[in-house]
Order: sequence, then C-alpha cells, then structure tokens
Amino acid sequence: MKIVLIGATGHTKYVVNGLKNNYEDEIIGIAPGSAGEDVTPLYQKLKRDYDIKKYEDYQKMLAELEPDVAAVACHFGDHARIAIDVLKQDIDLFVEKPIATTLADLEKVRNAYQASKSRLAAMFGIRYKPWFLTAYRQIKAGAIGEVRLMNAQKSYRLGEREDFYKKRVSYGGTIPWVGSHAIDWMQWLSGKDFKSVYASHSAKSNHNHGELEASALCHFRFEDDVFGSVNIDYLRPAKAPSHDDDRIRIAGTTGVIEVLKEKVYLINDQIDGIREIPLVAAEEIFADFLADLKGEKTCLISAQESFRVTQAALCARNSADQNKVIEF
Amino acid sequence: MKIVLIGATGHTKYVVNGLKNNYEDEIIGIAPGSAGEDVTPLYQKLKRDYDIKKYEDYQKMLAELEPDVAAVACHFGDHARIAIDVLKQDIDLFVEKPIATTLADLEKVRNAYQASKSRLAAMFGIRYKPWFLTAYRQIKAGAIGEVRLMNAQKSYRLGEREDFYKKRVSYGGTIPWVGSHAIDWMQWLSGKDFKSVYASHSAKSNHNHGELEASALCHFRFEDDVFGSVNIDYLRPAKAPSHDDDRIRIAGTTGVIEVLKEKVYLINDQIDGIREIPLVAAEEIFADFLADLKGEKTCLISAQESFRVTQAALCARNSADQNKVIEF
Repeated sequence: MKIVLIGATGHTKYVVNGLKNNYEDEIIGIAPGSAGEDVTPLYQKLKRDYDIKKYEDYQKMLAELEPDVAAVACHFGDHARIAIDVLKQDIDLFVEKPIATTLADLEKVRNAYQASKSRLAAMFGIRYKPWFLTAYRQIKAGAIGEVRLMNAQKSYRLGEREDFYKKRVSYGGTIPWVGSHAIDWMQWLSGKDFKSVYASHSAKSNHNHGELEASALCHFRFEDDVFGSVNIDYLRPAKAPSHDDDRIRIAGTTGVIEVLKEKVYLINDQIDGIREIPLVAAEEIFADFLADLKGEKTCLISAQESFRVTQAALCARNSADQNKVIEF
Repeated sequence: MKIVLIGATGHTKYVVNGLKNNYEDEIIGIAPGSAGEDVTPLYQKLKRDYDIKKYEDYQKMLAELEPDVAAVACHFGDHARIAIDVLKQDIDLFVEKPIATTLADLEKVRNAYQASKSRLAAMFGIRYKPWFLTAYRQIKAGAIGEVRLMNAQKSYRLGEREDFYKKRVSYGGTIPWVGSHAIDWMQWLSGKDFKSVYASHSAKSNHNHGELEASALCHFRFEDDVFGSVNIDYLRPAKAPSHDDDRIRIAGTTGVIEVLKEKVYLINDQIDGIREIPLVAAEEIFADFLADLKGEKTCLISAQESFRVTQAALCARNSADQNKVIEF
C-alpha cells in the first residue's frame, strides 16, 4: 500500500508505529493539512525509513502520488474538509478524531463517505491498549453479564499547547478532542447505542489557553436504560507520574470490571474477592486498518462507529454550550 | 442527655457507637417509627447497657420520657412526619437521611425546624470515616487549590432487602437513600452550593426488588462552573471483598485527591508522583452532634447542609423520573 500523511499534528505516530516490521507498505508523501502546520520535522524523521516526498499542497500530492491510503491529522477544525477531499478520490481514509468539529461538517463527511468507495476509520487508538483490549474481551466473554452503568475518565496534563488549541474553530472543544476516546469506549464495550446526552464544560483554570475547556462532564443515556458518564480534565499536575490517567469502570448484571492505572480488575459472582486480569498484548490501530483494507481481517473500529462517536461527542459539546439535554 | 430512638432501621448504630465510653448520656427509650417495624432485637441489646423502656407509640414515649434528643431511623418515607413531631416539642433531632422523601415534606420539616428551638443533624456519617476526613482536611489545607471537578461513587451489594425498600412511597428512591451520601461529600468537600442537576436511574436488574433502582447517575452543576457526578449502583457482587465501594476523586486547580478503597491519594504541583496520605482517626457522628448540643464544639454537619443535601438528592431523583434538568 502507498500511504500519504496530511498533517503532522495529533496521532501520526499511529501510522508510523503501525508500519513497524512491515516491509510491504510505505509512506510516500507528506503535506500540511492546516495553514501554519510545519511537517518538516516529521518529514525528516520519515525520510530515514521511506522514499518520501514533501509537498506544500496536499491536493497536488494526492494527484501526483495517487496513494491507496491517506492519514489525516492536522488542526482539528480542518479534518472534515480534507476528509471530504480524500473521500472524493476514493482513497481509503485514516482520520484523526474528531472527524469533524460541527455536526453540519460531520454530515458532509458522511455523505462523501457514502458516495465513495473508500474505507474509513477514525483514530480511536486507545482501544488497542492492552488494558482496554483485555476489558473488552472479558466483557465479550460474559465476565460481568449485561452492562448497566459505565464511568469513564480522561485526565491529561495541560502543559503548553499550540495556539490552535485556544480557539473553538480550530480546536473543536475538549469534549470532542479528549472526551471522544472515552465516549468511544462506552459504545464499544457496552454494545449499546446512544440515546441522549447532557454535558457541562468550563474554560476556567485553563492557564491562558483561550477557549480551551479545562474541565468537562458528560452524562449519556444508552439503549436499555444503560447510563454512562465521562469526566474530562486538563488538571493533571506536571509532576504527576504520567501524562494521562485513563479509566473506565463498568458495572454489569453479574460483575464489575475496571481499567485503573493500566491494570484491569474484575469482581463477579464467580470470583472470591478482586481478580487482577492478565493483560492481552497491545495491537496497532493502523496495522489493523491496513489488514482490513487487504481483506485479512475486520478492523476493530468501523466507519459507522467512527461517525456515531463523533456525533455523540459533538452533541455532548453542544449540550454543554446550551445547558440542555440533547436527544440523538 | 436523655436520648430516645424512634425506629430500628438504618443507622441506629451511629447512636450506639457515639455513646461508647460515654457515661454521661443515656438511651432511655425506644419505639417503632413505622408500621410493622420490630424494635425488639435492638431493645434487647440496648437493655444490657441502659435502663431503657420500650414503647409501641413514639408520641407516648416523647410525652412520658421528655428526652433531650430523639434519633429517628425508621422506614424512609416516615422520617419527615416523625421529624416534625419531634421538632414541635423542641427536642433535638438526629435524623436518618433522607430527611424527607418528597420536596413538599422536606419544606414542612424545614418550617418545623425554623419554628422550633431544636438543633438538627442528618446521618451523613460517612463524612467521619478516616479517608473522607483526611481528604477534607487536605482540601481545606490547600492541597489541590480550588475544586473544579468531582466524581463520586456509591456501590453496594443488594442482598435481600426488607419489603419497604421495594416501594417508592416507603423507600424514597436509590438516589436519596444511597446517593445522598455522595451528594453530601461533594457539597462538603468543595464548599460550593448546588445550581442544577440532571440524573438518570433504572430499576432493571434489581433482583425482584420492585421499584428499587439498581443503577443511577447524577450530574450536578455547582457554583463557579464546578461540576460533579455521582454513580450509584446495587450491582456489587455478593462475593466482592466488601459491602460497599465508596469513592470520590476531586480535581482542583493545583492537584487531584481521591478516596479509593479506603485510602487517600494525592498528586499536586508540589509532589513528585503519587502520595498516599496517612489517615486521620475516625470520629463518631453522634458524639459530634452531642458535643455540639453541649456547646463544646460545632458539629461537622449543619442543619442547613442536612436540608440542602436532602433537597439536592430529591431534585436529582425527580430529574431522573422526569428526564429533565432541574435548577435549584
């Protein structure tokens, strides 16, 4: 497969890591996706391993290189526009989340996807961490019965972010950028679809990051009276032992499983006390997507889920803006 | 002080434990508060330590014994009616939460309180557990700066509950009964007042407990754009290592503190890594209330907080019933 990168922001490392020990597929081009984006450092790094060309205009790159796959990871407000350009050319699309930063743009991407021959996955790469994969397999194996209640957490260090984080128009909001991972876990782990959302967010204590929300809270109702919360913050101190503190706790009809500090704990009606579950191996999201494109397996993240989670995250952000319940 | 018990349900142990090593104050009477409540086992137990009389009619007991303090802990739907009877006689009142199971009844109790000379505290006794007291003192000492985001948990084993739990009219709902503790922690630990609530609850998977909700989720907005969630469930398996799994995580402007598995963990801008905070000693809620009545100290739980948390819990339950945001 011939792969190009549009943008050097967000999780371009997923592409790089997904091609490790892969001598079949190659990155052949890179171009900025957003005004002011500097792709040179990533280009210099990739040049060591790939016969890669750098462009200033991604449209020109797509026309000249005719890639099989485009990975889009630029300023978040530009994802949708570029995604549409890629889909119109029937190029398979691996796109940073959120796919779009407005519901109107999301609908345009969805229409472009439906009119194209492209495959698509959004970069919900945290699913592939050993602790989340382990929880997923336990739940699928029936370890907690039917899911009833979920509580997820995304907590990050803020540090000093690039300027595009400071404006809603380029950043999209903390619920879509940070929270959508956790929103994705809930849909994926429960197998339940979203019904409604109520959310809150605040830019207070954001250390001069403009419109960036430093704290947020989402309350989802899913099918079958399943409920789920996501708490999101950029309040993790610089001296904390890690950048992030991802968590989820899922209570089911016969047990409770949780991901806490990169471990998985289970209690249920079979086990005396708490059991720490041995972790399965990590997988690579981009390798999974490529394998799907080659017909070798089905990618863990479907296009339908990618769209639905993005919609849920944008509805949550809108709920927080408007202080009202939004039905799906 | 002369103390009587009305009812033998809920946390009557707070009264018993609060009088340990206290040779000054005594329990002089017990009577049922609710129809069908059997106070005999508790009476038999207390008779070993106290010169106590058993009554069938608590009004007759109050008239004959003229106590200084009444502790009310019967079926939850009866708290308000009895509280009003106690307050009308200017007897100090130590009352099981929720103080009332409807907002109308709560208002009646508040009016009776304001017209009386009584002091009042509701049984938010979990505040006095070492881990919650420790978190409180850390926050008051500035360990996390200003509170921004709170996530609390109440998870219980269901077991086999008495019949009065199975009807809303006698039980009041899982958010007021179980959740109000966590709602109390948030108000207490943040020092912020409630602004609005959105909540959900479901009686699914309640193992034939009628109307009892086995899962619930509350989303509070407080002053200053502080947000707080409470997840509540009766889904803890019988084989779990403890009856309950109380938690709270509080993210502030300079740190994050959490109560998890009866320990307290702190990260902040002063500490490298995670610090487990040594626990302060447990205290006894009823001893604290008696000391306040004697003018020795101020009880950690005020009447105003007792009323406000009850109101918040009832608004949350009503929000869940009606699927709408309720402003305070």
